[in-house]
Amino acid sequence: MDIQELYKRGLALRKKIFGSDAVEKRMSAVGEFGKPLQHIVNAYAYGDVWSRPGLPDRIRSLIVLGMTAAINRPAEFKVHMNGAINNGCTPEEIREVCLMIALYCGIPASNDAHKIALETLTEKGIEAG
Amino acid sequence: MDIQELYKRGLALRKKIFGSDAVEKRMSAVGEFGKPLQHIVNAYAYGDVWSRPGLPDRIRSLIVLGMTAAINRPAEFKVHMNGAINNGCTPEEIREVCLMIALYCGIPASNDAHKIALETLTEKGIEAG
Amino acid sequence: MDIQELYKRGLALRKKIFGSDAVEKRMSAVGEFGKPLQHIVNAYAYGDVWSRPGLPDRIRSLIVLGMTAAINRPAEFKVHMNGAINNGCTPEEIREVCLMIALYCGIPASNDAHKIALETLTEKGIEAG
Amino acid sequence: MDIQELYKRGLALRKKIFGSDAVEKRMSAVGEFGKPLQHIVNAYAYGDVWSRPGLPDRIRSLIVLGMTAAINRPAEFKVHMNGAINNGCTPEEIREVCLMIALYCGIPASNDAHKIALETLTEKGIEAG
Amino acid sequence: MDIQELYKRGLALRKKIFGSDAVEKRMSAVGEFGKPLQHIVNAYAYGDVWSRPGLPDRIRSLIVLGMTAAINRPAEFKVHMNGAINNGCTPEEIREVCLMIALYCGIPASNDAHKIALETLTEKGIEAG
Amino acid sequence: MDIQELYKRGLALRKKIFGSDAVEKRMSAVGEFGKPLQHIVNAYAYGDVWSRPGLPDRIRSLIVLGMTAAINRPAEFKVHMNGAINNGCTPEEIREVCLMIALYCGIPASNDAHKIALETLTEKGIEAG
Repeated sequence: MDIQELYKRGLALRKKIFGSDAVEKRMSAVGEFGKPLQHIVNAYAYGDVWSRPGLPDRIRSLIVLGMTAAINRPAEFKVHMNGAINNGCTPEEIREVCLMIALYCGIPASNDAHKIALETLTEKGIEAG
Repeated sequence: MDIQELYKRGLALRKKIFGSDAVEKRMSAVGEFGKPLQHIVNAYAYGDVWSRPGLPDRIRSLIVLGMTAAINRPAEFKVHMNGAINNGCTPEEIREVCLMIALYCGIPASNDAHKIALETLTEKGIEAG
Repeated sequence: MDIQELYKRGLALRKKIFGSDAVEKRMSAVGEFGKPLQHIVNAYAYGDVWSRPGLPDRIRSLIVLGMTAAINRPAEFKVHMNGAINNGCTPEEIREVCLMIALYCGIPASNDAHKIALETLTEKGIEAG
Repeated sequence: MDIQELYKRGLALRKKIFGSDAVEKRMSAVGEFGKPLQHIVNAYAYGDVWSRPGLPDRIRSLIVLGMTAAINRPAEFKVHMNGAINNGCTPEEIREVCLMIALYCGIPASNDAHKIALETLTEKGIEAG
Repeated sequence: MDIQELYKRGLALRKKIFGSDAVEKRMSAVGEFGKPLQHIVNAYAYGDVWSRPGLPDRIRSLIVLGMTAAINRPAEFKVHMNGAINNGCTPEEIREVCLMIALYCGIPASNDAHKIALETLTEKGIEAG
Repeated sequence: MDIQELYKRGLALRKKIFGSDAVEKRMSAVGEFGKPLQHIVNAYAYGDVWSRPGLPDRIRSLIVLGMTAAINRPAEFKVHMNGAINNGCTPEEIREVCLMIALYCGIPASNDAHKIALETLTEKGIEAG
């Protein structure tokens, strides 16, 4: 397969998960400087790994929420909160991930995750709790 | 509910996931010194959080694999590899988690996770690939 | 012991350390969504671990400042700065913890800790230095 | 050598890398409370390690960008972005470090690094990309 | 003060905490290659920070156990377990630190800390529990 | 460009840096299970990022040593120690990176890095110090 096809496939999946506008906004925000990283994200992250058939997107989203909370990257956790909701994760499922974070990464990590999760659900007008 | 009930419920679930022998071996290995932590693990981790109905054990296992790889705790990742297999996770699903680790936590974290995952699958005589 | 007693004991200790208003504000901020985590915090963190007799609260506060700086959770470090002061830790003791962070977690972690420590001391009108 | 000489040598190098104003602003911001840490920074970090002849400052800057992105300390990454530019690192070299972060620390860490790198280059009026 | 005095003061304190033999063994193990780091450890870590009067060694040891568990450096945790015991920390106090780790850094970190703590206490013939 | 070309280019560069035997040993060790990750490593890590002209391999090696020490992945640090030596990094340059780790990631991280660095230099019969 040509790399450009991988890129197109990944970009399409990325837009399906996060919405076309959100993805374009993120890509233009980093301009020319960020193009090589956006290539990595679109072609390799979404065009390859996320496009693999082994797990449904909804489960991938829950796993990524756990990982990004664990590595302490709130901006990425926020992005994937939006993706998780679009992929059909329920507030209850998201909360369970946030509670598991307390066990495995500690209560402070879980506090931070809860805060962003609740904020995102509220922004989307989703009843949380 | 009395805390002792929480403890019993948690210990029963823990033994169901990891096997009675493995849990008893772990608990006796830390002796009197480790009793308060084992109380936390049995009563609070398994008796409360893991016992919540919001997510099936199989999905919790995949999420915990992602989290314990992210926080760089190989001994815990190994324990939960055994739990994941017992909970019905397939080698393909486990590999997808390990590949997502490369994206979100970096390739070295994914190398370490792959190594332990493959080792555990081999120990259990499960065809991996 | 019943879990509700554990919860009450923990909530009382938590309010003693951080002040009633601060605790209630934090609990109401996360609403229904955050109730299970608040249960973990009140019943298990404060009702169990913090309630154990093995260490005085003042020493626990110094240790938690070190841990929360090490794991890079500034919001939690800030909360426990308030608790540390209420528990009787002096600015000199707090600074010593922040200096030990430089040795064991690196100078950037120590810079971040110093900044929040000084900010909190200033907010409380405590002479620092 | 007397420690005061070490301190002076370090402070001079620090001012050469970051500019006199920036260093004095940082030092006065932490006041009396921060003096012992500023001593560590000036005497030991810049007066000793950074003053060693084994690596040119330009290469040290690239390495520190990688380290501070890896340990997730954005305020420190920002400070060293300014130092890297003053030490003669080009936007292309800085971007390569940020891309290596994606491989070794994961894409979220690289996103955060790219954002601060681009912001700093823009503040300095440097064409990035 | 001359740096050599700082170095001597630090080395003496380090030997008092860990024992002369243990320190000399560690220093000779890293040979010429490790001399600059040993200088940092002796002169700056023990000659400066640890020599400050603001906290007793016993409390510093408990804090360092918490920090080194939090940053996931088991070899360093082990070294400081020996130091903590020499500085008069009791098994009960050490266990309380290990339990706090479960709250703030997660259960896997606490498991790892308990294991090394118990191993060290057993090596020293100290009743743990 | 076709992805297979990217893969081939990356594999060739990887073998140049680490030696053909070492790479083939690593690839066969993870078997079928590890093929998708090996694809990511060869095609994306070495065929794309490492193949970019913006930084010489020798400087990339020093940066990766800093990053892998910072993220606490000793197996990866060891692999890249071998690569660094093959890429022409001197023991003095490697030691400077290890000393910078003490400043930015803390002394325990620097201790671990020094130990592996010295071990690798000794294995290769390189005078260190």
